[in-house]
Amino acid sequence: MNNMEIERKFLIKEIPFSLESFNVRLIEQGYLCTGPVVRIRRDNDKYELTYKSGGMMKRREENLPLNKTAYEHLVTKVDGRLIQKKRYMIPLDGTNTGLTVELDVFEGELAPLVLAEVEFPDEETANAFVAPEWFGEDVTFCGLYHNSYLSRL
Amino acid sequence: MNNMEIERKFLIKEIPFSLESFNVRLIEQGYLCTGPVVRIRRDNDKYELTYKSGGMMKRREENLPLNKTAYEHLVTKVDGRLIQKKRYMIPLDGTNTGLTVELDVFEGELAPLVLAEVEFPDEETANAFVAPEWFGEDVTFCGLYHNSYLSRL
Repeated sequence: MNNMEIERKFLIKEIPFSLESFNVRLIEQGYLCTGPVVRIRRDNDKYELTYKSGGMMKRREENLPLNKTAYEHLVTKVDGRLIQKKRYMIPLDGTNTGLTVELDVFEGELAPLVLAEVEFPDEETANAFVAPEWFGEDVTFCGLYHNSYLSRL
Repeated sequence: MNNMEIERKFLIKEIPFSLESFNVRLIEQGYLCTGPVVRIRRDNDKYELTYKSGGMMKRREENLPLNKTAYEHLVTKVDGRLIQKKRYMIPLDGTNTGLTVELDVFEGELAPLVLAEVEFPDEETANAFVAPEWFGEDVTFCGLYHNSYLSRL
């Protein structure tokens, strides 16, 4: 069963520091289906098929291992475009110490889109979060920035 | 985790009785990938995505619900052909009482192929099984009659 994630998502206009020193992964993902979600993803050298059912009360999520060959075969079947992005893990400081930003820098046709996601241990922390100055608009509730939507844009 | 199934598979040349009185389902299945297996299947009005990893010791199998729309979308992405067959459930009698044959009557390009599968509660019963007269060659260990192979034939 699905663990409930508490996270907020923000647009980023400009990053006022160099990303070079941060841990980075190359992420590619595409969708074979969006209702339920059948997604393939490459995260550096890890390949996965993810299934996410719809529904509110009874959701199911499974992450299933693929190998490179299977991934490269399935990639030819995705709808729309393959999303390619670099994901940087950036620890926050000040009142946000203990939290980490997942910063997605999109490549290809979706460049120069940059999205920041912060995951919280509980709702209280999520509501109390004061976004750093370099964060832009809060798009947590905006479907436009879901990866499944971006893949069809 | 995968339950180990103990089953034997046979070719059928001729069925010496009418199938009309037996329970029948329409089954369609196709493969998006074969290593690991990513299969979609329609079983009457039930639609499913199945994942089966390779490997001997640590296999994983997941059956994930699809709806009709998702199935019809994914069907356009299968490799090779979509397998279509009617599956009859036929209870056996005599020394085989308690066992049931799953009789698959293939349609389309794979007609007139007919395969019988019998599932056993344990290995002892499987080894002691005396096939009915109307059963043909035992193809339990013959990869040629795996559905994933038939889909590419």
